[in-house]
Amino acid sequence: MESFFRYNWIVREQWFQWCEDVPLEELLRPRTGGVGNILQTFFHIIDVEWSWLQVLQGKPDGMENFEDYKTLEAVRQFERKLRPDVETFVLSWDPSMEKRPYIDPELDSTVVKESWGEVMRHVIAHEIHHMGQLSVWSRELDKKPVSANFIGKGLITPDN
Amino acid sequence: MESFFRYNWIVREQWFQWCEDVPLEELLRPRTGGVGNILQTFFHIIDVEWSWLQVLQGKPDGMENFEDYKTLEAVRQFERKLRPDVETFVLSWDPSMEKRPYIDPELDSTVVKESWGEVMRHVIAHEIHHMGQLSVWSRELDKKPVSANFIGKGLITPDN
Repeated sequence: MESFFRYNWIVREQWFQWCEDVPLEELLRPRTGGVGNILQTFFHIIDVEWSWLQVLQGKPDGMENFEDYKTLEAVRQFERKLRPDVETFVLSWDPSMEKRPYIDPELDSTVVKESWGEVMRHVIAHEIHHMGQLSVWSRELDKKPVSANFIGKGLITPDN
Repeated sequence: MESFFRYNWIVREQWFQWCEDVPLEELLRPRTGGVGNILQTFFHIIDVEWSWLQVLQGKPDGMENFEDYKTLEAVRQFERKLRPDVETFVLSWDPSMEKRPYIDPELDSTVVKESWGEVMRHVIAHEIHHMGQLSVWSRELDKKPVSANFIGKGLITPDN
Protein backbone atom coordinates (compact mmCIF):
# COMPACT_ATOMS: atom_id res chain seq x y z
CA MET A 1 0.00 0.00 0.00
CA GLU A 2 2.73 2.39 1.02
CA SER A 3 4.56 2.07 -2.30
CA PHE A 4 1.57 3.39 -4.27
CA PHE A 5 1.24 6.39 -1.96
CA ARG A 6 4.97 7.08 -2.31
CA TYR A 7 4.57 6.79 -6.07
CA ASN A 8 1.82 9.39 -6.06
CA TRP A 9 3.83 11.76 -3.86
CA ILE A 10 6.88 11.50 -6.14
CA VAL A 11 4.81 12.09 -9.28
CA ARG A 12 2.95 14.95 -7.59
CA GLU A 13 6.23 16.67 -6.68
CA GLN A 14 7.44 16.23 -10.26
CA TRP A 15 4.23 17.86 -11.49
CA PHE A 16 4.73 20.74 -9.04
CA GLN A 17 8.16 21.26 -10.59
CA TRP A 18 6.55 21.09 -14.04
CA CYS A 19 4.16 23.84 -12.89
CA GLU A 20 7.03 26.15 -11.99
CA ASP A 21 7.61 26.91 -15.68
CA VAL A 22 3.94 27.53 -16.43
CA PRO A 23 2.37 30.98 -15.95
CA LEU A 24 -0.23 31.12 -13.18
CA GLU A 25 -2.78 32.19 -15.77
CA GLU A 26 -2.34 28.84 -17.54
CA LEU A 27 -2.48 26.91 -14.26
CA LEU A 28 -5.88 28.47 -13.58
CA ARG A 29 -7.25 28.52 -17.14
CA PRO A 30 -10.49 26.54 -17.50
CA ARG A 31 -9.91 23.19 -19.23
CA THR A 32 -12.09 20.38 -20.49
CA GLY A 33 -12.61 17.45 -18.12
CA GLY A 34 -11.60 16.68 -14.57
CA VAL A 35 -12.01 19.47 -12.05
CA GLY A 36 -11.45 22.06 -14.74
CA ASN A 37 -7.99 23.54 -14.23
CA ILE A 38 -4.48 22.43 -13.39
CA LEU A 39 -3.96 24.00 -9.99
CA GLN A 40 -7.38 22.98 -8.71
CA THR A 41 -6.57 19.39 -9.70
CA PHE A 42 -3.69 19.41 -7.21
CA PHE A 43 -5.80 21.05 -4.54
CA HIS A 44 -8.47 18.41 -5.15
CA ILE A 45 -6.22 15.34 -4.95
CA ILE A 46 -4.47 16.60 -1.81
CA ASP A 47 -7.82 17.39 -0.22
CA VAL A 48 -9.41 14.07 -1.20
CA GLU A 49 -6.43 12.01 -0.02
CA TRP A 50 -6.38 13.65 3.40
CA SER A 51 -10.16 13.72 3.80
CA TRP A 52 -10.69 10.03 3.09
CA LEU A 53 -7.99 9.03 5.54
CA GLN A 54 -9.41 11.32 8.20
CA VAL A 55 -12.88 9.88 7.69
CA LEU A 56 -11.56 6.31 7.98
CA GLN A 57 -10.14 7.25 11.36
CA GLY A 58 -13.36 8.91 12.48
CA LYS A 59 -11.66 12.31 12.52
CA PRO A 60 -13.05 15.60 11.19
CA ASP A 61 -12.23 16.08 7.51
CA GLY A 62 -12.30 19.88 7.45
CA MET A 63 -13.63 21.97 4.67
CA GLU A 64 -11.12 24.01 2.69
CA ASN A 65 -11.87 26.12 -0.34
CA PHE A 66 -9.76 26.32 -3.47
CA GLU A 67 -10.49 30.06 -3.61
CA ASP A 68 -7.97 30.45 -0.77
CA TYR A 69 -5.22 28.47 -2.57
CA LYS A 70 -4.96 29.91 -6.06
CA THR A 71 -1.17 29.98 -6.41
CA LEU A 72 1.32 27.15 -6.80
CA GLU A 73 3.00 28.07 -3.53
CA ALA A 74 -0.31 28.09 -1.67
CA VAL A 75 -1.15 24.62 -2.98
CA ARG A 76 2.29 23.39 -1.95
CA GLN A 77 1.72 24.82 1.51
CA PHE A 78 -1.67 23.11 1.62
CA GLU A 79 0.10 19.84 0.91
CA ARG A 80 2.79 20.43 3.50
CA LYS A 81 0.07 21.06 6.05
CA LEU A 82 -1.84 17.83 5.31
CA ARG A 83 0.94 15.41 4.41
CA PRO A 84 2.02 14.54 7.98
CA ASP A 85 -1.46 13.23 8.85
CA VAL A 86 -1.58 11.22 5.62
CA GLU A 87 1.91 9.84 6.03
CA THR A 88 1.33 8.79 9.63
CA PHE A 89 -1.73 6.81 8.63
CA VAL A 90 -0.16 5.24 5.55
CA LEU A 91 2.92 4.17 7.53
CA SER A 92 0.70 2.63 10.20
CA TRP A 93 -1.18 0.56 7.62
CA ASP A 94 -1.09 -3.19 8.08
CA PRO A 95 -2.87 -5.94 6.15
CA SER A 96 -5.26 -6.63 9.02
CA MET A 97 -6.97 -3.34 8.13
CA GLU A 98 -7.86 -4.44 4.60
CA LYS A 99 -11.36 -5.72 5.33
CA ARG A 100 -12.20 -3.44 8.20
CA PRO A 101 -15.65 -2.00 7.47
CA TYR A 102 -15.85 1.66 6.56
CA ILE A 103 -18.83 3.18 8.34
CA ASP A 104 -20.08 6.24 6.47
CA PRO A 105 -20.96 8.68 9.27
CA GLU A 106 -23.79 10.08 7.17
CA LEU A 107 -25.46 6.72 6.64
CA ASP A 108 -27.09 4.13 8.83
CA SER A 109 -24.17 2.33 10.48
CA THR A 110 -25.73 -1.04 9.71
CA VAL A 111 -25.19 -0.35 6.02
CA VAL A 112 -21.56 -1.18 5.40
CA LYS A 113 -20.59 -1.24 1.78
CA GLU A 114 -16.90 -0.48 1.70
CA SER A 115 -13.77 -1.84 3.34
CA TRP A 116 -10.76 0.20 4.39
CA GLY A 117 -8.71 -1.55 1.71
CA GLU A 118 -11.11 -0.32 -0.94
CA VAL A 119 -11.01 3.24 0.35
CA MET A 120 -7.20 3.27 0.32
CA ARG A 121 -7.10 2.00 -3.28
CA HIS A 122 -9.79 4.50 -4.21
CA VAL A 123 -7.51 7.31 -3.03
CA ILE A 124 -4.55 5.86 -4.95
CA ALA A 125 -6.47 5.39 -8.22
CA HIS A 126 -8.08 8.81 -7.84
CA GLU A 127 -4.76 10.62 -8.06
CA ILE A 128 -3.37 8.51 -10.90
CA HIS A 129 -6.56 9.14 -12.88
CA HIS A 130 -6.28 12.91 -12.44
CA MET A 131 -2.60 12.86 -13.43
CA GLY A 132 -3.71 11.22 -16.68
CA GLN A 133 -5.92 14.24 -17.30
CA LEU A 134 -3.00 16.57 -16.60
CA SER A 135 -0.93 14.73 -19.19
CA VAL A 136 -3.46 15.68 -21.91
CA TRP A 137 -3.58 19.30 -20.75
CA SER A 138 0.23 19.30 -20.71
CA ARG A 139 0.35 18.33 -24.40
CA GLU A 140 -2.21 21.03 -25.15
CA LEU A 141 0.35 23.44 -23.69
CA ASP A 142 3.05 21.87 -25.90
CA LYS A 143 4.85 20.65 -22.80
CA LYS A 144 6.12 17.15 -22.09
CA PRO A 145 4.05 15.63 -19.27
CA VAL A 146 5.58 14.06 -16.18
CA SER A 147 6.12 10.32 -16.61
CA ALA A 148 3.52 8.05 -15.03
CA ASN A 149 6.03 5.19 -14.73
CA PHE A 150 5.97 3.26 -11.49
CA ILE A 151 9.20 1.50 -12.41
CA GLY A 152 12.45 3.42 -12.17
CA LYS A 153 11.60 5.16 -8.90
CA GLY A 154 13.22 2.67 -6.51
CA LEU A 155 9.92 2.02 -4.76
CA ILE A 156 10.34 -1.72 -4.11
CA THR A 157 13.97 -2.80 -3.98
CA PRO A 158 14.51 -6.23 -5.56
CA ASP A 159 16.21 -8.97 -3.56
CA ASN A 160 19.80 -9.74 -4.48
CA MET B 1 -2.75 -7.02 -6.20
CA GLU B 2 -5.65 -8.89 -7.73
CA SER B 3 -8.18 -6.26 -6.67
CA PHE B 4 -6.45 -3.53 -8.71
CA PHE B 5 -6.37 -5.74 -11.82
CA ARG B 6 -10.07 -6.55 -11.34
CA TYR B 7 -10.74 -2.83 -10.97
CA ASN B 8 -9.00 -2.13 -14.27
CA TRP B 9 -10.90 -4.92 -16.04
CA ILE B 10 -14.25 -3.64 -14.77
CA VAL B 11 -13.49 -0.06 -15.77
CA ARG B 12 -12.16 -1.22 -19.15
CA GLU B 13 -15.37 -3.12 -19.86
CA GLN B 14 -17.40 -0.06 -18.89
CA TRP B 15 -15.34 2.02 -21.32
CA PHE B 16 -15.93 -0.58 -24.04
CA GLN B 17 -19.67 -0.14 -23.45
CA TRP B 18 -19.19 3.63 -23.58
CA CYS B 19 -17.49 3.15 -26.97
CA GLU B 20 -20.53 1.35 -28.37
CA ASP B 21 -22.37 4.65 -28.72
CA VAL B 22 -19.46 6.44 -30.36
CA PRO B 23 -18.92 6.33 -34.13
CA LEU B 24 -15.79 4.47 -35.21
CA GLU B 25 -14.56 7.66 -36.83
CA GLU B 26 -14.50 9.34 -33.41
CA LEU B 27 -12.81 6.33 -31.79
CA LEU B 28 -9.99 6.64 -34.32
CA ARG B 29 -9.83 10.44 -34.57
CA PRO B 30 -6.40 11.83 -33.63
CA ARG B 31 -6.43 13.43 -30.17
CA THR B 32 -4.00 15.40 -28.06
CA GLY B 33 -1.94 13.40 -25.56
CA GLY B 34 -1.55 9.75 -24.72
CA VAL B 35 -1.27 7.35 -27.65
CA GLY B 36 -3.36 9.67 -29.80
CA ASN B 37 -6.79 8.09 -30.21
CA ILE B 38 -9.39 6.28 -28.16
CA LEU B 39 -9.31 2.82 -29.69
CA GLN B 40 -5.53 2.66 -29.80
CA THR B 41 -5.48 3.50 -26.09
CA PHE B 42 -7.35 0.26 -25.40
CA PHE B 43 -5.13 -1.72 -27.73
CA HIS B 44 -2.11 -0.24 -25.96
CA ILE B 45 -3.18 -0.99 -22.39
CA ILE B 46 -4.20 -4.55 -23.25
CA ASP B 47 -0.92 -5.10 -25.08
CA VAL B 48 1.22 -3.56 -22.33
CA GLU B 49 -0.53 -5.50 -19.56
CA TRP B 50 -0.04 -8.83 -21.29
CA SER B 51 3.50 -8.09 -22.51
CA TRP B 52 4.86 -7.11 -19.09
CA LEU B 53 3.44 -10.23 -17.48
CA GLN B 54 4.84 -12.41 -20.24
CA VAL B 55 8.27 -10.83 -19.87
CA LEU B 56 8.22 -11.37 -16.10
CA GLN B 57 7.66 -15.05 -16.75
CA GLY B 58 10.41 -15.22 -19.35
CA LYS B 59 7.86 -15.89 -22.09
CA PRO B 60 7.76 -14.32 -25.56
CA ASP B 61 5.77 -11.09 -25.58
CA GLY B 62 4.66 -11.14 -29.21
CA MET B 63 4.43 -8.16 -31.44
CA GLU B 64 0.95 -7.13 -32.54
CA ASN B 65 0.10 -4.08 -34.59
CA PHE B 66 -2.81 -1.74 -33.98
CA GLU B 67 -3.32 -1.53 -37.77
CA ASP B 68 -4.87 -5.01 -37.52
CA TYR B 69 -7.30 -4.04 -34.74
CA LYS B 70 -9.01 -0.85 -35.84
CA THR B 71 -12.57 -1.66 -34.76
CA LEU B 72 -14.09 -1.93 -31.31
CA GLU B 73 -14.93 -5.58 -31.86
CA ALA B 74 -11.37 -6.37 -32.97
CA VAL B 75 -9.97 -4.74 -29.84
CA ARG B 76 -12.41 -6.70 -27.70
CA GLN B 77 -11.29 -9.90 -29.42
CA PHE B 78 -7.68 -8.91 -28.80
CA GLU B 79 -8.52 -8.63 -25.13
CA ARG B 80 -10.36 -11.95 -25.03
CA LYS B 81 -7.30 -13.57 -26.58
CA LEU B 82 -4.83 -12.17 -24.04
CA ARG B 83 -6.90 -12.06 -20.87
CA PRO B 84 -6.55 -15.76 -19.91
CA ASP B 85 -2.74 -15.48 -19.74
CA VAL B 86 -3.00 -12.31 -17.68
CA GLU B 87 -5.63 -13.69 -15.35
CA THR B 88 -3.72 -16.91 -14.72
CA PHE B 89 -0.65 -14.96 -13.69
CA VAL B 90 -2.52 -12.44 -11.55
CA LEU B 91 -4.40 -15.21 -9.74
CA SER B 92 -1.14 -17.03 -9.06
CA TRP B 93 0.43 -13.93 -7.50
CA ASP B 94 1.60 -14.24 -3.94
CA PRO B 95 3.45 -11.77 -1.73
CA SER B 96 6.69 -13.76 -1.95
CA MET B 97 7.00 -12.52 -5.53
CA GLU B 98 7.08 -8.85 -4.55
CA LYS B 99 10.85 -8.45 -4.41
CA ARG B 100 11.78 -11.02 -7.00
CA PRO B 101 14.26 -9.34 -9.34
CA TYR B 102 13.08 -8.57 -12.84
CA ILE B 103 15.86 -9.43 -15.28
CA ASP B 104 15.53 -7.39 -18.46
CA PRO B 105 16.42 -9.88 -21.21
CA GLU B 106 17.95 -7.09 -23.27
CA LEU B 107 20.30 -5.96 -20.53
CA ASP B 108 23.21 -7.47 -18.65
CA SER B 109 21.58 -9.84 -16.16
CA THR B 110 23.77 -8.51 -13.38
CA VAL B 111 21.98 -5.17 -13.68
CA VAL B 112 18.75 -5.64 -11.78
CA LYS B 113 16.84 -2.47 -11.21
CA GLU B 114 13.23 -3.54 -10.85
CA SER B 115 11.28 -5.98 -8.72
CA TRP B 116 8.24 -7.96 -9.83
CA GLY B 117 6.11 -5.96 -7.41
CA GLU B 118 7.16 -2.76 -9.13
CA VAL B 119 6.37 -4.15 -12.56
CA MET B 120 2.90 -5.26 -11.47
CA ARG B 121 2.12 -1.82 -10.03
CA HIS B 122 3.54 -0.21 -13.16
CA VAL B 123 0.97 -2.12 -15.22
CA ILE B 124 -1.84 -1.13 -12.86
CA ALA B 125 -0.94 2.57 -12.80
CA HIS B 126 -0.39 2.57 -16.56
CA GLU B 127 -4.01 1.71 -17.29
CA ILE B 128 -5.48 4.09 -14.69
CA HIS B 129 -3.37 6.90 -16.14
CA HIS B 130 -4.62 6.26 -19.67
CA MET B 131 -8.23 6.10 -18.47
CA GLY B 132 -7.70 9.60 -17.07
CA GLN B 133 -6.78 10.74 -20.57
CA LEU B 134 -9.92 9.10 -21.97
CA SER B 135 -12.01 11.02 -19.44
CA VAL B 136 -10.82 14.32 -20.95
CA TRP B 137 -11.46 13.12 -24.49
CA SER B 138 -14.90 11.95 -23.38
CA ARG B 139 -15.81 15.47 -22.19
CA GLU B 140 -14.53 16.84 -25.49
CA LEU B 141 -17.14 14.59 -27.12
CA ASP B 142 -19.77 15.95 -24.70
CA LYS B 143 -20.11 12.50 -23.17
CA LYS B 144 -20.00 11.57 -19.50
CA PRO B 145 -16.82 9.57 -18.82
CA VAL B 146 -16.82 6.23 -17.04
CA SER B 147 -16.32 6.62 -13.29
CA ALA B 148 -12.81 5.98 -11.98
CA ASN B 149 -14.15 5.05 -8.54
CA PHE B 150 -12.54 2.05 -6.89
CA ILE B 151 -15.23 2.04 -4.21
CA GLY B 152 -18.66 0.75 -5.08
CA LYS B 153 -17.45 -2.18 -7.17
CA GLY B 154 -17.47 -4.83 -4.44
CA LEU B 155 -13.75 -5.50 -4.90
CA ILE B 156 -12.83 -6.11 -1.25
CA THR B 157 -15.77 -7.27 0.85
CA PRO B 158 -15.70 -5.81 4.36
CA ASP B 159 -15.82 -8.11 7.35
CA ASN B 160 -19.11 -8.24 9.20
